[in-house]
Amino acid sequence: MRIALLSPISWRTPPRHYGPWESVVSLLAEELVRMGMNITLFATGDSQTQGQLIAVCPRAYSENSSVDPKVAECLHISEVFERSNDFDVIHNHFDFLPLTYSKLVQTPVVTTIHGFSSPSILPVYRKYNGHSHYVAISEADRSPELDYIATIHHGIDLLLFPFSEIHEGYLLFFGRIHPDKGVREAIEVARRSGIPLKIAGIIQDEEYFRTSVEPFIDGEAVEYLGVVGPTQRPRILGSALALLHLIDFNEPFGLSLVESLACGTPIIAYPRGSISEIVRHGETGYVVRDIEDAVNAVANVRSLDRFVCRKDAERRFSHTRMANDYILAYRKLVEAV
Amino acid sequence: MRIALLSPISWRTPPRHYGPWESVVSLLAEELVRMGMNITLFATGDSQTQGQLIAVCPRAYSENSSVDPKVAECLHISEVFERSNDFDVIHNHFDFLPLTYSKLVQTPVVTTIHGFSSPSILPVYRKYNGHSHYVAISEADRSPELDYIATIHHGIDLLLFPFSEIHEGYLLFFGRIHPDKGVREAIEVARRSGIPLKIAGIIQDEEYFRTSVEPFIDGEAVEYLGVVGPTQRPRILGSALALLHLIDFNEPFGLSLVESLACGTPIIAYPRGSISEIVRHGETGYVVRDIEDAVNAVANVRSLDRFVCRKDAERRFSHTRMANDYILAYRKLVEAV
Repeated sequence: MRIALLSPISWRTPPRHYGPWESVVSLLAEELVRMGMNITLFATGDSQTQGQLIAVCPRAYSENSSVDPKVAECLHISEVFERSNDFDVIHNHFDFLPLTYSKLVQTPVVTTIHGFSSPSILPVYRKYNGHSHYVAISEADRSPELDYIATIHHGIDLLLFPFSEIHEGYLLFFGRIHPDKGVREAIEVARRSGIPLKIAGIIQDEEYFRTSVEPFIDGEAVEYLGVVGPTQRPRILGSALALLHLIDFNEPFGLSLVESLACGTPIIAYPRGSISEIVRHGETGYVVRDIEDAVNAVANVRSLDRFVCRKDAERRFSHTRMANDYILAYRKLVEAV
Repeated sequence: MRIALLSPISWRTPPRHYGPWESVVSLLAEELVRMGMNITLFATGDSQTQGQLIAVCPRAYSENSSVDPKVAECLHISEVFERSNDFDVIHNHFDFLPLTYSKLVQTPVVTTIHGFSSPSILPVYRKYNGHSHYVAISEADRSPELDYIATIHHGIDLLLFPFSEIHEGYLLFFGRIHPDKGVREAIEVARRSGIPLKIAGIIQDEEYFRTSVEPFIDGEAVEYLGVVGPTQRPRILGSALALLHLIDFNEPFGLSLVESLACGTPIIAYPRGSISEIVRHGETGYVVRDIEDAVNAVANVRSLDRFVCRKDAERRFSHTRMANDYILAYRKLVEAV
C-alpha cells in the first residue's frame, strides 16, 4: 500500500521540542516504514524520515516568522492532493482544511482528528462526514455528530522510554504552562504533600506563569526545568515518583502520560477527557476528584508497582500497536474503493 | 457559456457600504446576466443577483463576528470546485486560496487579481502561473513574474452615476481613512486653496483619524460625512468641484475615481499605481507631483469640461465594456480546452 502522510507544518516532523501532532505523525511514519509499507511524508523540508519526504515549505512556520502560515499551508496541502494518483490512501493529520480538497480526488482520505480546536470548525467535519473517514484519538474525543471508522490511541517508541525501577522521589508536572494543564494545582498538591515538584514544559501563557507559577519557584520545593527536549525526557519522566496531571479541560489524549507509564512512573490525574482510557485507577495511577484526593493519592502512590505501568504501556501504547491499527483502517478504505 | 463567479464573503455581494471586490463581482455578474449569459454567483446567502445564487455561508464574516473566516472560506471555495462539472469557466475573485484547488478539476479557472495584499502571497500565484489564467485590473498592477491573459479595468453601472453639470464648489476626499489614501494631504490642499473639503469613507486607521484628520474637522472648512452609502454617493461625488486623490501607495485601481468621472467631477491625483491609466492629465483631471502642484491644479480645475469626464467614463469604464472584455477572456479559455 502506498500511503501519503500529511503532517502539519507548524513544527518540523519530528518536532525539535514541542509539536504533539508532528510527533505522532513521525512515530507512525517511521514504524510503518519499518513494517515495509511505502510511505511518503509531506512535511517541512527539514523533516526527517526513513520514507520519502516531499516538502513545499523549507521551514516550519512556528520556527520561522518569515513564513506566511496561510500561504504555506495551502501550498503544502494542495501538493498531496495534486499527487493523489500516486497513493492508495491519503492520511491527513492537518485538521479540517484538507477535507475541502478531498472530494476532488479519487484517492480515499482518512483524517486523524487530533482534537477540535473550537466548535466553529465542526461544520467542515460535518460536511465531509461519510465522504472522508475519521479516526478518533480517544473515545472521549469523539463528537456525537460524526461517524468514525476507528478510535486509535497514540503509541510511542518504547525503546526511547526505558523502564526505570528506581525513582528520585520528586513529583513531576510535564506539559504546556497554561491554566488548562493545572500547574498551579500541581504546586499545591506538592506543597501539601511535602514533596518537591519539578515543572517541565513550554510557557504558553506568560501571565499565568508570572502570577501563578513563578512566585513558587525556589529551585528546591518547586523547580522549573524549562523545555525538556527528547534526549532528557526519559530521565526526567522515569526518575519521578509520580506525574501530576490535574488538568482543567477535556484533553483528547496525553502523549506525556503514556511516556510516563513507559518509564514506570504512575499518574495522578483528574478524570477529564481521555484520562480514564489511559490511567488504570489503582494500578497505573489514581484518578482523583480534587486537591485533597490528589494529596491522598500521593501518599499511596509508592504502593503501586512501577513495572505494571511499564507493562501496560507496552501492551496498549506502543507505536507498533498504533501502526497496526492504522494499517487495518487503511485496508478498510482500500477495500471499499 | 456557463460561468461560475466566485465572490469573496468578507461582505455581501453587492456590499451594503464598503467592499470593493464584492462590488466589482456584482457589477460584472449582473451585466453578464443582462447580456444573456448563464451566471451562477457563489457569495454570501444574503447576496442579491439576477443570476443563480449558491451560498454556503449565510452571512459575511466582516458583518458577523460569529463566522470563523477560515472555516467559512474553505467551505465556500470548495463548493464551487465540487460543482466544477456544471460550468465552462470558473471565475475566481477570491485571491490566492482557490488557485490551490484549480489543478484538481478539469474546468478552466480565470483569476482576477484584485491586488497583492503582501509579497508573501506571490509564491501561490507563481506556482499556478501557466495553469490558472490571470487577469490584471490595471497595467500598473501587473507583476513581472506572472503571465496574464488580459488587463481588464473595472467598469461601473453608469446609470447609477448620472452626469452632474453643476457642482457646489467643494473639494472631496472619498475613500478609506488611512495614511495610504492621503486624507491629511487633501486637508492641506483644501486649506491652502481656501476651498471647503468634504471627507467621506470608513475609518480604517483610528489613530490616523484621531491625530491627522479629526483636529481639522469643523463642519465648514473640513466636514466629515462618515460612510456614504450607494444611494447618496452619486450626489456627493457629482456635486464636488474636484476629487482629491493624493495617495501614498500604488493603488491597483480606484473605483471611486471612475464613479467621480461618470458624475462629471475631475480628479487631482498623485501619479501612483493605476492613476495615469484612469486620469487623462489636462482633460479629466490633473496628475500632480506635490501639494504645491495640487493647489495650482485646484486653481485651474474649473477650466476642465465636466462633460468630457462623463464621456471618458462612458467610453472606457462602463460595466458593459468590462463584461465584454471578460467574455473575450472566457472564450480564450474555453477554446483552449
